[in-house]
Amino acid sequence: MNSVIELLKSHRSIRKFTDKKISQELLSDLIQAGQAAATSSFLQGVTVIRVTDGEKKAAFVDISGGQKYVATAAEFLVFCADLDRSSRCCEWHDAKATVGFTEQFIIATVDVGLFAQNVVVAAESEGLGICYIGGIRNNPARAAELLELPNNVYPVFGLCLGYPDQDPEVKPRLPVPVVLKENSYDDGQDRALIDAYDQDVRQYYRTRTGGKKEMSWSEQMSGLLGKESRPHMRAFLKDQGFDMK
Amino acid sequence: MNSVIELLKSHRSIRKFTDKKISQELLSDLIQAGQAAATSSFLQGVTVIRVTDGEKKAAFVDISGGQKYVATAAEFLVFCADLDRSSRCCEWHDAKATVGFTEQFIIATVDVGLFAQNVVVAAESEGLGICYIGGIRNNPARAAELLELPNNVYPVFGLCLGYPDQDPEVKPRLPVPVVLKENSYDDGQDRALIDAYDQDVRQYYRTRTGGKKEMSWSEQMSGLLGKESRPHMRAFLKDQGFDMK
Repeated sequence: MNSVIELLKSHRSIRKFTDKKISQELLSDLIQAGQAAATSSFLQGVTVIRVTDGEKKAAFVDISGGQKYVATAAEFLVFCADLDRSSRCCEWHDAKATVGFTEQFIIATVDVGLFAQNVVVAAESEGLGICYIGGIRNNPARAAELLELPNNVYPVFGLCLGYPDQDPEVKPRLPVPVVLKENSYDDGQDRALIDAYDQDVRQYYRTRTGGKKEMSWSEQMSGLLGKESRPHMRAFLKDQGFDMK
Repeated sequence: MNSVIELLKSHRSIRKFTDKKISQELLSDLIQAGQAAATSSFLQGVTVIRVTDGEKKAAFVDISGGQKYVATAAEFLVFCADLDRSSRCCEWHDAKATVGFTEQFIIATVDVGLFAQNVVVAAESEGLGICYIGGIRNNPARAAELLELPNNVYPVFGLCLGYPDQDPEVKPRLPVPVVLKENSYDDGQDRALIDAYDQDVRQYYRTRTGGKKEMSWSEQMSGLLGKESRPHMRAFLKDQGFDMK
């Protein structure tokens, strides 16, 4: 296993940061690393908004349910899926932009995922810690308003970046045979493997919380999938131009 | 700039591979690197199907519009967004799975993006080349049938992996100020920057094709957004359980 794979495997979210800033040069390097990721049909459907304004940062803490590190991290970036930039190209070449397709939504959302993960790997290779903030989708309309997003652009997630002031354990992942199948989706062995994994996850929480929390992975999933999941997203996206046709 | 960031910035798609196989140990390492990426709410909403069956590989060449390297690459992996595994957890804990939300679709799709990009970075760090295959969405229903995907699982993209037998140039990306904004989406400077970038892209194609192809980025986008984009995706996803509610 080489040092890059070791770096990837050592990822854990960081939620407490020192005061040290990230240099402009490094930030630019991280963004360029993100841009270097593959992009479907050369779309480059990603716009990153760097939030430096104090009031806007406070608003994002609020939107994301009080995650204070959104304001205390050296950088808080909002990753947006962007079909507006490419739509503008149509005007310049006297074509009519045909947007609102589910496929385009997938392409731009995947572009954001690949780009952001490259930023994360680059950041961690420089000793930075990161935390993705899906909580901005608690109120995506307010996030879009704060960032003055045009139609055909939506905020997918935020990302906190900074120098770590904590050193949490790596969280155990599902056994490889549960996530890697050959030729067909065959879940016959999953239950036994997940039962064993559930014990690992319980142990992880016991250690991390000094015995206060103890919950298996399958219990967490049952809680997560057992309830509605941000039911406002559909209407928000439609308002923003993503018709999902 | 450290060596990891250099590696990330040197990415280009590889479409011609040597006969050299990828060891099982390395493949397992790549998958574990993928799993180590962040996952929203600990969902781990990714299943990777490794296609080794010759007939299925041939079918995927066909689905993806005749991209032969799908069959000739050492490995062809299909990355699926998976809400079935977590739904099963609900049954085990006597809860009722509540699926079909757009938000869940986003979470699982983003999970796939982060996971796959980690696999790609790990692969490239080992000297492998890769090519994402979005073309499997030309006929996602057939892809799902071939892989026997259950409801609440959809194939997002394929990935070819192998040892490179070509050494193409890195494709130029948009200038950083076009994709990185501060505090708000302000596209005032974009047009001038994209005009200059368009010339870089023309030059890239001139060099790569010996003068045969010459197309700017904005022209490509105008072609891409000027036509319908896989309009079958919406109905396919609905059939597969993704109601987008």
